[in-house]
Amino acid sequence: MAHHDESAAAPLDAERDALAGWIEGGVHHLPARVYYADTDFSGVVYHARYLEFLERGRSDFLRLHDIHHTELLARPEDEALVWVVRRMEIDFRASAKIDDVLTVQTAIAALSGARVTMEQRIVRGDSILIAAKVHAAIIDRAGKPRRLPRDWRDAFAATAGSAIQT
Amino acid sequence: MAHHDESAAAPLDAERDALAGWIEGGVHHLPARVYYADTDFSGVVYHARYLEFLERGRSDFLRLHDIHHTELLARPEDEALVWVVRRMEIDFRASAKIDDVLTVQTAIAALSGARVTMEQRIVRGDSILIAAKVHAAIIDRAGKPRRLPRDWRDAFAATAGSAIQT
Amino acid sequence: MAHHDESAAAPLDAERDALAGWIEGGVHHLPARVYYADTDFSGVVYHARYLEFLERGRSDFLRLHDIHHTELLARPEDEALVWVVRRMEIDFRASAKIDDVLTVQTAIAALSGARVTMEQRIVRGDSILIAAKVHAAIIDRAGKPRRLPRDWRDAFAATAGSAIQT
Amino acid sequence: MAHHDESAAAPLDAERDALAGWIEGGVHHLPARVYYADTDFSGVVYHARYLEFLERGRSDFLRLHDIHHTELLARPEDEALVWVVRRMEIDFRASAKIDDVLTVQTAIAALSGARVTMEQRIVRGDSILIAAKVHAAIIDRAGKPRRLPRDWRDAFAATAGSAIQT
Repeated sequence: MAHHDESAAAPLDAERDALAGWIEGGVHHLPARVYYADTDFSGVVYHARYLEFLERGRSDFLRLHDIHHTELLARPEDEALVWVVRRMEIDFRASAKIDDVLTVQTAIAALSGARVTMEQRIVRGDSILIAAKVHAAIIDRAGKPRRLPRDWRDAFAATAGSAIQT
Repeated sequence: MAHHDESAAAPLDAERDALAGWIEGGVHHLPARVYYADTDFSGVVYHARYLEFLERGRSDFLRLHDIHHTELLARPEDEALVWVVRRMEIDFRASAKIDDVLTVQTAIAALSGARVTMEQRIVRGDSILIAAKVHAAIIDRAGKPRRLPRDWRDAFAATAGSAIQT
Repeated sequence: MAHHDESAAAPLDAERDALAGWIEGGVHHLPARVYYADTDFSGVVYHARYLEFLERGRSDFLRLHDIHHTELLARPEDEALVWVVRRMEIDFRASAKIDDVLTVQTAIAALSGARVTMEQRIVRGDSILIAAKVHAAIIDRAGKPRRLPRDWRDAFAATAGSAIQT
Repeated sequence: MAHHDESAAAPLDAERDALAGWIEGGVHHLPARVYYADTDFSGVVYHARYLEFLERGRSDFLRLHDIHHTELLARPEDEALVWVVRRMEIDFRASAKIDDVLTVQTAIAALSGARVTMEQRIVRGDSILIAAKVHAAIIDRAGKPRRLPRDWRDAFAATAGSAIQT
């Protein structure tokens, strides 16, 4: 029967870190399990559910860069920001099954004033199941695109161009 | 109360009526198809997806009573309202499969100042697949329960106690 | 090819036709409502849920061509077939909101021996919210790609190249 | 920036253990993050998505008892088994929000020949957000209820009656 390491000094914090994955060589890695809810009657993961795994990867990538959805939306009315996906290109190369442990990989591929292009993979061991290119932007309450804050761009630029496992 | 209006001149409106189902003997009926996204790897509909079908039934029941989620939330800040589910009791009696055409049945079972109890069924032909009792309430932005507006209670009372197919 | 048949004697069948949409000028149209379950906390439809709307469109497009998921999977073990999505390119142009009535448009863009490329739109009135190109294929139980049956190709070819509303 | 413990002897296994939660005093605990996909336009988690969190808890509770969905279904045709939910009673006491870290708690409340009753909670820190009673059973391919294997009952019995945090 599995246990968490009882000797860990701060179990709660360790938990939260584990939940958010980690960055290595500019690539964010997030482990995730496949549950019943993710599958469909053909026996494998339903194609649109892979996008939820990808979103978790992007959200935790941002979280580790100290960018939080709640804070963005809680800013004063005229500064509130929301991330939006503008375009996705997704290759569904192979299928994941119930009980599988997957890793979602996320890296910055390109940065412009108002757009971030991310490259993402969902892998199981050495196999790439899903490869995606995601074009995201931030908009304000009125739906207008806004420039990425400079400190984000600096943080992202540091990792941009990193090679994702291919 | 809206009905399938066979005489409707405008096809678009007829479409919208069809989409929202109809009320007959106090019971709202909403036809709904089972798609890939609703199923899981065991071959039938994933248990939590039935709750989405039930929600569609409740939302369209309200819609035919001229109660719209968007309007409730768009009211002035201190009058904005949101429906919340407080408690559900759900019997999963039989399973639905891909391509099935189901009917969601919704009726008011009881009304109090701040609560509505609804009885719901998901049926396929003569078979009851799901039977649920749903306790709902409305809350304001601060999360405080609010009394149901009198005109809603009057409208609901007119149909309350209707016998749902059992 | 099924149509909204106004003269239908049997309401149940009319219902089923209504549920599956209709084909006009080679383009399949499926009306669909946005419910709570489709939205996220940013106030609009969650990006991955649009893929569920698109899947409903493709499934009902096939249904009106008399191709049914259940039958494909129920064929003798070595002839069982499953549709799979190989690649999607999706432009998220504008957002849908709770209570919106959308139309999912689906048309064949190209056919090869083992692949179908579909063009899809999700529109609200005159606005295109989502534009997608979907590359699908059929595989057998072993995961091997299989040629599309000739009668499907003939049926699809008849509608291929149809102009989707742009 | 968070990292996994590099000194861990078997990082992959540690990963898998961390993902499946842990059992303490007969109660299974599974940490889980709230993402965009879990929320709805009212700003909090969509009610039916809590059932997905509960399912993850039950699946990982079983996993730590060495019961795996894939193995159950992969047994010889006439011994294949699937878990089904027969009835749920769910109290939605308070709401979870985007970015929240929740813990799903799962314990056996009662055992009969063919049924397991589980008590589940979703908590955030000291607050109980969701309390549920779940009646589950196992069925064979023909949909017939089957007795729980003796070794499962022994394993469950060891933890049955454990006090869940209330």
